[in-house]
Amino acid sequence: MRAILKDSELLYPQDALAKFLNEFGVKQLEVERINLEDSLNRIVAEDIISDIPLPPFSRSTVDGFAIKHDLCPGEFTVIDKIRIGEFKEIRIGNGEAVEVDTGSPIPEGATAVVKVENTVIEGNKVKVSKKLSFGENIGWIGTDIPKGTLVVRRGERLNPYKIALLASIGIRQVLVYKRPRIYIIITGDELVEPGKDLDPGKIYESNSYYLQAYYLSKGYDVIKRTHVNDDKELIRREILEGIEKADIVIVTGGSSAGEKDYVHQVIKEEGKIIVHGLKIKPGKPAILAEIKGKPVFGLPGNITSTMVINEEVVDKYIDIMYNISSYRYTIKATITNEVKADYNRTTYIPVYLIKKDGKYYAIGMPFDSYMIGVFSTADGYIIINPGENIEEGSEVSVYLRSLDERPVYIGEEEPTLYPRGFRVLPFGSYIGLKAIKYGIGDVIVISNLYDSNFKGDLSKERNVIETGEGSEYVGYLEWVGLSKLVKDPVVKLRYPSVALQLMDKAKIIIPDTFHKDGKVIGKEKLEIIVRNPDIKKYFRG
Amino acid sequence: MRAILKDSELLYPQDALAKFLNEFGVKQLEVERINLEDSLNRIVAEDIISDIPLPPFSRSTVDGFAIKHDLCPGEFTVIDKIRIGEFKEIRIGNGEAVEVDTGSPIPEGATAVVKVENTVIEGNKVKVSKKLSFGENIGWIGTDIPKGTLVVRRGERLNPYKIALLASIGIRQVLVYKRPRIYIIITGDELVEPGKDLDPGKIYESNSYYLQAYYLSKGYDVIKRTHVNDDKELIRREILEGIEKADIVIVTGGSSAGEKDYVHQVIKEEGKIIVHGLKIKPGKPAILAEIKGKPVFGLPGNITSTMVINEEVVDKYIDIMYNISSYRYTIKATITNEVKADYNRTTYIPVYLIKKDGKYYAIGMPFDSYMIGVFSTADGYIIINPGENIEEGSEVSVYLRSLDERPVYIGEEEPTLYPRGFRVLPFGSYIGLKAIKYGIGDVIVISNLYDSNFKGDLSKERNVIETGEGSEYVGYLEWVGLSKLVKDPVVKLRYPSVALQLMDKAKIIIPDTFHKDGKVIGKEKLEIIVRNPDIKKYFRG
Repeated sequence: MRAILKDSELLYPQDALAKFLNEFGVKQLEVERINLEDSLNRIVAEDIISDIPLPPFSRSTVDGFAIKHDLCPGEFTVIDKIRIGEFKEIRIGNGEAVEVDTGSPIPEGATAVVKVENTVIEGNKVKVSKKLSFGENIGWIGTDIPKGTLVVRRGERLNPYKIALLASIGIRQVLVYKRPRIYIIITGDELVEPGKDLDPGKIYESNSYYLQAYYLSKGYDVIKRTHVNDDKELIRREILEGIEKADIVIVTGGSSAGEKDYVHQVIKEEGKIIVHGLKIKPGKPAILAEIKGKPVFGLPGNITSTMVINEEVVDKYIDIMYNISSYRYTIKATITNEVKADYNRTTYIPVYLIKKDGKYYAIGMPFDSYMIGVFSTADGYIIINPGENIEEGSEVSVYLRSLDERPVYIGEEEPTLYPRGFRVLPFGSYIGLKAIKYGIGDVIVISNLYDSNFKGDLSKERNVIETGEGSEYVGYLEWVGLSKLVKDPVVKLRYPSVALQLMDKAKIIIPDTFHKDGKVIGKEKLEIIVRNPDIKKYFRG
Repeated sequence: MRAILKDSELLYPQDALAKFLNEFGVKQLEVERINLEDSLNRIVAEDIISDIPLPPFSRSTVDGFAIKHDLCPGEFTVIDKIRIGEFKEIRIGNGEAVEVDTGSPIPEGATAVVKVENTVIEGNKVKVSKKLSFGENIGWIGTDIPKGTLVVRRGERLNPYKIALLASIGIRQVLVYKRPRIYIIITGDELVEPGKDLDPGKIYESNSYYLQAYYLSKGYDVIKRTHVNDDKELIRREILEGIEKADIVIVTGGSSAGEKDYVHQVIKEEGKIIVHGLKIKPGKPAILAEIKGKPVFGLPGNITSTMVINEEVVDKYIDIMYNISSYRYTIKATITNEVKADYNRTTYIPVYLIKKDGKYYAIGMPFDSYMIGVFSTADGYIIINPGENIEEGSEVSVYLRSLDERPVYIGEEEPTLYPRGFRVLPFGSYIGLKAIKYGIGDVIVISNLYDSNFKGDLSKERNVIETGEGSEYVGYLEWVGLSKLVKDPVVKLRYPSVALQLMDKAKIIIPDTFHKDGKVIGKEKLEIIVRNPDIKKYFRG
């Protein structure tokens, strides 16, 4: 039995990070000068000021003739031609024109360029029949970027646009922070490497895959990724090796305070724990520590806890090492169903987003720390204060991870109905009814077992069948919900695969689209709403 | 003089791409099976279905005791303990309990787990004083991901979350599309490599830096990046080498139809031009072509045109090679100033975004294709139909590139006032007044030369000085604006660097914060609005 991290003694992540910075401090990353072509995703370590104006000379923005604008309409004599990349010391007088291409320097004295399609050319004469305004079709020197402009600031991450900008002002090399070296140690006897057989009671190791991919996607240097069993001396050896070779050591698992929590014990013996336990769900038993002057982060073993603590604490600490400020995208959305926080901890709720008329609606998912499926496929999450309820219909700020704007199938799961190319959100009839209420989704499917009064545009019958035997007490949350709505509660399962797992433990009733054997005990009617007439054709076919 | 691509014969990018797909088709990328840890950013080439349920067994979500819930409140005898990673064939009876940790499998017959902090333990007895509900603190088998669930679809890009999900269901290797091999050829005698001296009339080469970084950021394989001069045979040699070695050849420059447009000529001689000229600004003279069964894209030489055509056409074509659908983020914003499209072409307008009360406001920037500075520092862009005007105050859809939520200084440029850590948007008094109208920005600075009636919270005087000599006809757009508002128009410059460039070509008047020499000819008062009281202190100091 683990010792308990008391909720009242926990810190919010931002307070934990502040305490850590206060007591341990931060070691700025070293800098290096690298070639611009190697600088993607790197963080700039200096303010970069343009030594030249852009454009570097006043240039034509069209193919045509450089002239004095106040003599138009009029006729001009073409005295020369300036090609792109050429520079000629020409000064035009009244009545003179110089032929230019898009991007050619304009000659001195010119105040406009007339487009070739607005002229009549006869020999070396050009006739212009329209008026021109001062500066028309000229990009004046320095109008894009004046010389001396601060174009990239220290702490900015270089994306393809900024790299192009730096190339445009002639920058060949940039001073950047060295990439942080990260050492990832995964602990836990219960973890099995993906690809191997999964013995009962074991789960696959996924923390190291996430952490490595997360930091590689930021362009950081993951110098080792290793999985060790719950052996105190092996864990100690890895942590000490990490301290020696890396800038940051991340250890997952064993971060609580119990007898078998060796990570916690080793960190305590080798260094100093500055924060233990965070007021956040998922992610409570996290450790922020120091060993021999290096930061060590102990993350809870549950994959979603690892994700949250990594992004709320570790990555933010790395940003501070870089001297940059963290930023995450949020968008506003209307939540379609009530969601609740843990009583004592700030709570993350994953959400799926559906767009309608330019506004976003968020479907909040009930969620526990082990639910990597929900957490990794959601479009983002909302953060709720301890004890808070967010009522249906409220506006929420969604921390965005991705967006998927394919048309949406939502509601009762029924593989025979899934339209090709749709995003399928098979979250059941309750969520389907919310979709109808808020007018979201393209195909919505409700079971009449759930709402007998509801009528869709189309419908489909499916058999409800009985298979297996055993205790009715084995089931899962959805069943508990359904049992309140039908007179004679039975264990109705959402997915056939779950039925197979429970085969001799429960009385199982599943739709026959999932399973061909078993006794038919009733009919379930699915009501189908199809918003888009084009798709309706598909369903009739 | 170049030949003209007639506006009436141009195609919109989506129509051009459709025509290209129709006439040339698309060659799907080959596939390969790789290790999961190497799969970041790769596109999955198969539907991946989970062979196991997640969690793989019903498990405890807390540290505590597994019991039968309907016997609570009550006393239980602890008969065994199941640790994380262990599996024991235990079936509990009435009045029995099994000690479990967070993540331990629950024994058969258990219907809930009571948290250790809600029990009193005496020897091998556990007292529970509260009621428990069915399933409390149990994560039932398969409730996150039922066995047989389609977890990742063909065409999805693997991010750290999806990689973790695949690891969680035991996937060790994934079938992915091979990375497209891209060959980048830059043409143009006017282009100078960054880091070298810039002769008059020349500009720095930035296209290849952008294109390489863009495709590296997507994880693609840039096999060559080269700059060749305007030499038809050299260009031919590079294009043919690209055709041989790569999946896609991108050539920038020389894509119009004039005598020196060798790229156009070589493509015509070696293969087939399917589309020439797009109804888009920037980006008109683009080429979609085929040589020996491979796609070749000719992009205009202006860096912003290259960016737009690359993202609107080339990258979308690559997405089709991958069999994935393109998607770009948009957010809604209110535009603070009128913007106009080109009469004949779909027009991109870069915008800067400012957030207020959860809503976004977009400052639209007048823009020409050569303006890499504006284009690369903007937060995104809006797309306007040919001939369309977007009125001030309208709601627009912004294609998002990045967001910067630092506090904002906006309006008249005045380096002595820039607060540390602010985002500085020195777009002048006109935009500053719009910021006041829409209530956006944190520090807003307006010149009284622009609006003499306006009064800020604070003010600052600066000298207007006269330096240099020459024609008043050299200036730039902002001057034209200002001349309408003051009685005696003078060439007032925004940046000192521009002044230096124009030093003996114009009569220059600049604020003395930029320049210490010259004759003082007047005072300009800056009116400063400071919305945040904390910042106000800073300005008084």
